[in-house]
Amino acid sequence: MKYDLIVIGGGPGGYVAAIRASQLGMTVAVVENENVGGICLNWGCIPTKALLKSASVFEYAMHAADYGVTLDGQPKADFSKMVARSREVASGMSKGVQFLLKKNKVETISGFGKLKDGHTVEVSASDGSKSTVTGKHIILATGARSRTLPNLPQDGVKIIGYRQALTLTKQPKSMVVVGSGAIGSEFAYFYNAIGTKVTLVEFLPNVVPVEDEEVSKTLERAFKKSGITVMTNASVESVDTSGDLCKVKIQTKKGLVEEEAEVVLSAVGIAPNVEGIGLEELGIEMDKGKVKVDEYYRTNVEGVYAIGDIVPGPALAHVASAEGITCVEKIAGLNPHPINYKNIPGCTYTNPEVASLGMTEKAATEAGFEIKVGKFPFTASGKASAAGTKDGFIKLIFDAKYGELLGAHMIGANVTEMIAELVVARNLETTGHEIIKSIHPHPTMSEAIMEAAAAAYGEVIHM
Amino acid sequence: MKYDLIVIGGGPGGYVAAIRASQLGMTVAVVENENVGGICLNWGCIPTKALLKSASVFEYAMHAADYGVTLDGQPKADFSKMVARSREVASGMSKGVQFLLKKNKVETISGFGKLKDGHTVEVSASDGSKSTVTGKHIILATGARSRTLPNLPQDGVKIIGYRQALTLTKQPKSMVVVGSGAIGSEFAYFYNAIGTKVTLVEFLPNVVPVEDEEVSKTLERAFKKSGITVMTNASVESVDTSGDLCKVKIQTKKGLVEEEAEVVLSAVGIAPNVEGIGLEELGIEMDKGKVKVDEYYRTNVEGVYAIGDIVPGPALAHVASAEGITCVEKIAGLNPHPINYKNIPGCTYTNPEVASLGMTEKAATEAGFEIKVGKFPFTASGKASAAGTKDGFIKLIFDAKYGELLGAHMIGANVTEMIAELVVARNLETTGHEIIKSIHPHPTMSEAIMEAAAAAYGEVIHM
Repeated sequence: MKYDLIVIGGGPGGYVAAIRASQLGMTVAVVENENVGGICLNWGCIPTKALLKSASVFEYAMHAADYGVTLDGQPKADFSKMVARSREVASGMSKGVQFLLKKNKVETISGFGKLKDGHTVEVSASDGSKSTVTGKHIILATGARSRTLPNLPQDGVKIIGYRQALTLTKQPKSMVVVGSGAIGSEFAYFYNAIGTKVTLVEFLPNVVPVEDEEVSKTLERAFKKSGITVMTNASVESVDTSGDLCKVKIQTKKGLVEEEAEVVLSAVGIAPNVEGIGLEELGIEMDKGKVKVDEYYRTNVEGVYAIGDIVPGPALAHVASAEGITCVEKIAGLNPHPINYKNIPGCTYTNPEVASLGMTEKAATEAGFEIKVGKFPFTASGKASAAGTKDGFIKLIFDAKYGELLGAHMIGANVTEMIAELVVARNLETTGHEIIKSIHPHPTMSEAIMEAAAAAYGEVIHM
Repeated sequence: MKYDLIVIGGGPGGYVAAIRASQLGMTVAVVENENVGGICLNWGCIPTKALLKSASVFEYAMHAADYGVTLDGQPKADFSKMVARSREVASGMSKGVQFLLKKNKVETISGFGKLKDGHTVEVSASDGSKSTVTGKHIILATGARSRTLPNLPQDGVKIIGYRQALTLTKQPKSMVVVGSGAIGSEFAYFYNAIGTKVTLVEFLPNVVPVEDEEVSKTLERAFKKSGITVMTNASVESVDTSGDLCKVKIQTKKGLVEEEAEVVLSAVGIAPNVEGIGLEELGIEMDKGKVKVDEYYRTNVEGVYAIGDIVPGPALAHVASAEGITCVEKIAGLNPHPINYKNIPGCTYTNPEVASLGMTEKAATEAGFEIKVGKFPFTASGKASAAGTKDGFIKLIFDAKYGELLGAHMIGANVTEMIAELVVARNLETTGHEIIKSIHPHPTMSEAIMEAAAAAYGEVIHM
């Protein structure tokens, strides 16, 4: 067999697995149909963060006077420059991954990969030609795509997905965003910040519905304050795209309403790419539409593994990467710990930012835990006052009995950089007092983590 | 005796000790000669961070086009508005501390406190009247002030300290900053960013001389790139303030040079406030000009304790607060762990920011450790690319034998918020692999911590 490992899919699951495997001495090939780096790097995490930074700079310009900075006239958002910058960042990163793969002697094979048997991949190139490659182990890391709903058929022009939302040629005057998960919320924030009239429609009772309810409510207030029309408990019934503007019929608690918008962005979740890659032919067992794997990502077919968005668990780039590393370390005969899925951080890069891990207050209570909850608002933080970022709070949930950190929920500036502290803490089985007694530097936003832990134990100082 | 505890000094050591003591059931008074919150809150950490935020917004405005934001004409720094905002933030925070003290039933006594015996404090009010208060325990938390050098006599107008630097009535066209510790570096960065011509003079070979040499060199390069004239291995011989401009004679390796500047800022360190507070009269033992204390901050005189800038150890607000809490918890009969002075983070809020803890590479080597060093540059970070913050790196130093984290050294955007992760990690006696295996969210700057740890063990992915 030609390779020790073939990875189908070059996203953050696949390319990271390939590099780690190469470090561990394997010969590796990655089969990728599009650009290495995958959706995350080309159409997701990275280009959105570039746009969001542009929005942040625009917001600072709009509020420059608050900080003693005087501008002549109104700042203008140059949408096409923002998009061009975002594309440059993405293509630069994709080239970086190409370089890393080469440096690590990972071969990249262009084409669509399909399992033929447990050790053979058929690659269909863009010119229609087919070839096969063989490997001792095959990792499926084909990722996911935008989910489509029957009443929101994406035409790529008027009803769009995240790809088009990243590359529109002109800024729409109005937009209906359907779905307020991380993707929908980030686009709603971005477009609203630069002046598009945005309506955000969420089927569930709260925006960012996987988050702790208090966090969701706080983000909803911030969204409304910034001018976004937020409709929760609402669903899009139909979109009429026949005229200049889309006519969007939305069922709300108060009845049917109609919104007009230039563009409708469908952000109703993602669907795993499990079609046409040979799963049925090989009899690979599935689990609710995803590939069934064990704790080391082995499928039921010898030699075939699966990681990332096509296996159960949160569909997040950092999870896919960690799964890829764990999978190849096990293949290489190391003894990696299985991933603790209770300790996965999730982030939404709106303003304010949202970051969380573990159980929400509601989930912890429903699971029967007796809990201690500590909350610290950024209004009481010196750094937040100095920086003009007093929105939001940190909420930590501890098991009252053993002091275990069950969940962390944060909303505010920089919280996406602060959540890692709690991932490490939880990984090391911290208790509340160990966080309280870790001397956080003053003045930082991160002190609020220490204070939230202290609040849970009646020891908070600044509240 | 009237109080369980009297605290002399209402800074971040004193007021925090007072609040914690009150939580633990003590009756408490704080004697403060100026404003509660101390230097940190009124003349240090907080108002500087407010100015630095203004500088950051100004810099974003200057580079707005890079992010697709179009401005008419050049942004202008409105210096007096920046100063006014900074003073508002400080006075707001000071009022907040007043409120907290009241809420916690801590009495605030205005005046200068002096020990009369182990249980009595004489308070001299501003009107000259004297009174005495008695307490079972007395904590000295009198803090520090700007150190003065004979050849840099501060006149408050042409040769100034940090207080005046925070409240100048007009932005100087030129400034010589003497001393490149956190205070000097932050002011040099701030004034240069808003258009003052700044020369930074450092006696030692590197700026921010307590930091790891690579960090210092990186900050020096960033300073020079931003237009600051940096002179290391240099000392101010004399300042002639007789003319319109100060004539500053600076001894450098290449000989004596003369710089002209409107203002000279002396930032050559701080001096503990140990005078006139009764130390000699009570025979309190000293240690190199500071008050000698044990691990629970007890002096040699029964009933008298000392914390913060007047005791050995780093003169930092968060250290003073932690010392205050540890001291009163011990007084209250709890069993607090003594503070681990090897795990104290230090931050400099320039652009790029600097944050560190533990040993530098040089110190670790000199102490005889066999070390593993892992470094990850932000040029290789996806979030840094998206955010346009690719300057800097993270460097972690591990003991090769036991995997203990000996030091963390960071320079870049947001690192002051990221260092807390390593404080907690070190508090929990982490090893490199526990950091590597903590799933950091993507895309964040904090991933660079995980990658730096991985780099130390040959497992780095994105480099």
